[in-house]
Amino acid sequence: MEKVKIENRELRFSTHGDGDVIDLTNRVQKVLDELKLTKGTVTCFVPGSTAGLTTIEYEPGLKKDLPILMEKLIPKRSNYHHNATWGDGNAFSHLRHALIGPSVTIPFSDGKLILGTWQQIVFLEFDNTPRKRKVILQFIGI
Amino acid sequence: MEKVKIENRELRFSTHGDGDVIDLTNRVQKVLDELKLTKGTVTCFVPGSTAGLTTIEYEPGLKKDLPILMEKLIPKRSNYHHNATWGDGNAFSHLRHALIGPSVTIPFSDGKLILGTWQQIVFLEFDNTPRKRKVILQFIGI
Amino acid sequence: MEKVKIENRELRFSTHGDGDVIDLTNRVQKVLDELKLTKGTVTCFVPGSTAGLTTIEYEPGLKKDLPILMEKLIPKRSNYHHNATWGDGNAFSHLRHALIGPSVTIPFSDGKLILGTWQQIVFLEFDNTPRKRKVILQFIGI
Repeated sequence: MEKVKIENRELRFSTHGDGDVIDLTNRVQKVLDELKLTKGTVTCFVPGSTAGLTTIEYEPGLKKDLPILMEKLIPKRSNYHHNATWGDGNAFSHLRHALIGPSVTIPFSDGKLILGTWQQIVFLEFDNTPRKRKVILQFIGI
Repeated sequence: MEKVKIENRELRFSTHGDGDVIDLTNRVQKVLDELKLTKGTVTCFVPGSTAGLTTIEYEPGLKKDLPILMEKLIPKRSNYHHNATWGDGNAFSHLRHALIGPSVTIPFSDGKLILGTWQQIVFLEFDNTPRKRKVILQFIGI
Repeated sequence: MEKVKIENRELRFSTHGDGDVIDLTNRVQKVLDELKLTKGTVTCFVPGSTAGLTTIEYEPGLKKDLPILMEKLIPKRSNYHHNATWGDGNAFSHLRHALIGPSVTIPFSDGKLILGTWQQIVFLEFDNTPRKRKVILQFIGI
């Protein structure tokens, strides 16, 4: 029986601020290739509270629709207590993060991420300024 | 010390299209029984971008309330860019998927899923037509 | 090579009912310290269907903003089918749980949870009465 391995890696990239939707799928698959793991899960996690991770069909229409939806559910401008206290105007970023969540866990088999044909791992930037971002990739597998 | 095992399995089933809420709890527990794992987690994951997984009390009232909520938050009909591009009319399905997420991770102990008495693992169909679906069960445990 | 370990633990605490936001970060880190694991993930999971787990900057402003957001998205009072059937008036609690999800998975490295500086693990009470709560901590690591 093969031994289970635990491996942590990082992806680093820059964003253009709120509304940016970044496809991480190929970068996650590339790290998986390097690790030569065949079966298990990778948890993609953003250490920060103004961005989120999920999966979506990464195509130009939805890249517009998703930020419009977030604006409808959690508008940038509202009488947020966070903004009154800190004056940094990004309460909406924090709330969108809490709703979407900081992580997404993807299984893999035969060394390939198990994703639908039209399903990509996406990083959602919610902060109101461009940011340098880091995503932790936490692999458990054989 | 027992050795950690990594096991991938699949559930397959058909849905009636958007609004379908399917209880997977017993099927996941049955696979866990077959694997004879006692302690760890199972990640339930949908490879596809027009459905979701979460937990809920699976009872007739909430089976109606949850689709009504999704329709309120993300209506079927709206001027979505995805629909303008692709003409398939299921932008709402993709957006509901992005909001709910593709997976749910459940711990287990003594060979039993650790769930509340009134808590079931549910598959939420968001697509606008009946679908044949597959859910990946990714077990890590001893 | 070190051996992977699977460890389940519990946190127990009381809540004041809907709107309570409880920071679990230090308690999760303390259990991690006791387990002396260095690298892996912890899945925090609520066995119950009227509360949720996510991460947020735990500060007084957002502690008010988040329950206000939940009330906007899923109001306490509405014509829910669940309430008509059961008469317990907490359909909104169940729906908020389904939206936020029952778990959050956090990676760790060098024995420390990998969180942003302003990012805490929070338990969100959605039920309409004070509750005694249990959160499962499911660790996989070396």
